[in-house]
Amino acid sequence: MVDRAKDERFMRMALQEAKEAFDADEIPVGTVIVCKDRVVARAHNLTECLGDVTAHAEMQAITSAAASLGGKYLTDCTLYVTLEPCVMCAGAIGWAQLARVVFGAGDEKRGYRRFAPHVLHSKTEVECGVLAGECIALMKDFFAKKR
Amino acid sequence: MVDRAKDERFMRMALQEAKEAFDADEIPVGTVIVCKDRVVARAHNLTECLGDVTAHAEMQAITSAAASLGGKYLTDCTLYVTLEPCVMCAGAIGWAQLARVVFGAGDEKRGYRRFAPHVLHSKTEVECGVLAGECIALMKDFFAKKR
Repeated sequence: MVDRAKDERFMRMALQEAKEAFDADEIPVGTVIVCKDRVVARAHNLTECLGDVTAHAEMQAITSAAASLGGKYLTDCTLYVTLEPCVMCAGAIGWAQLARVVFGAGDEKRGYRRFAPHVLHSKTEVECGVLAGECIALMKDFFAKKR
Repeated sequence: MVDRAKDERFMRMALQEAKEAFDADEIPVGTVIVCKDRVVARAHNLTECLGDVTAHAEMQAITSAAASLGGKYLTDCTLYVTLEPCVMCAGAIGWAQLARVVFGAGDEKRGYRRFAPHVLHSKTEVECGVLAGECIALMKDFFAKKR
């Protein structure tokens, strides 16, 4: 059974991470990974700061969660992310076999559903649209500031 | 103009990296990134050693090349890899906008061409089959040893 209140609570943490990215002038995407109601990793996008295209929030969080849990498969975990994962991140989510992925805003231009709809593990549940309004507003504010 | 002898020389370096992975009991995949005939990064798969699904050879090499060159876009670079990149790595190659990708063995099961054929940057040239026999043999030896 999906507990929407719980999903919103964790998505709010991911949004907090995204705001830290925003404040650091990074595209504002934040991630939290949760294992049995415990947060095992949180991260935000650091591509500009590190000068590294692979430093998306999800990639860092997957590496961090695996280190925290002591195993590379995250089969008991849910990944919350403010924006639909790109193909690279969805590929990593596929390898890590997460139980569930919850995202806020969809990404029609760069999201994995456009380029690689079958990349996730067949057992991974996906939910979108959690706190979507706030996730989208943060992205819009960021790109308005850039113009 | 494609210089096959040069491609084979750099693929042989990637194969050397793959052999280091083999000796460390990792799936034997190796990568070299070259910028204007200079090797700027080399790496091999470390997923088991690091317990991290994101530690594919290409991911590490992209991070390393960006650090070496001081910029996150690798538009003057060629990535040599012994096995067709997976979706995660192809996504990263797309973000980094590499000029060229050269791979040895194809990967029908997990390769990006099956799941996300349009994920690379539109300007990226792709070549496959360089030293394919040796790349395939190394993978076969690895999985035969595992049985």
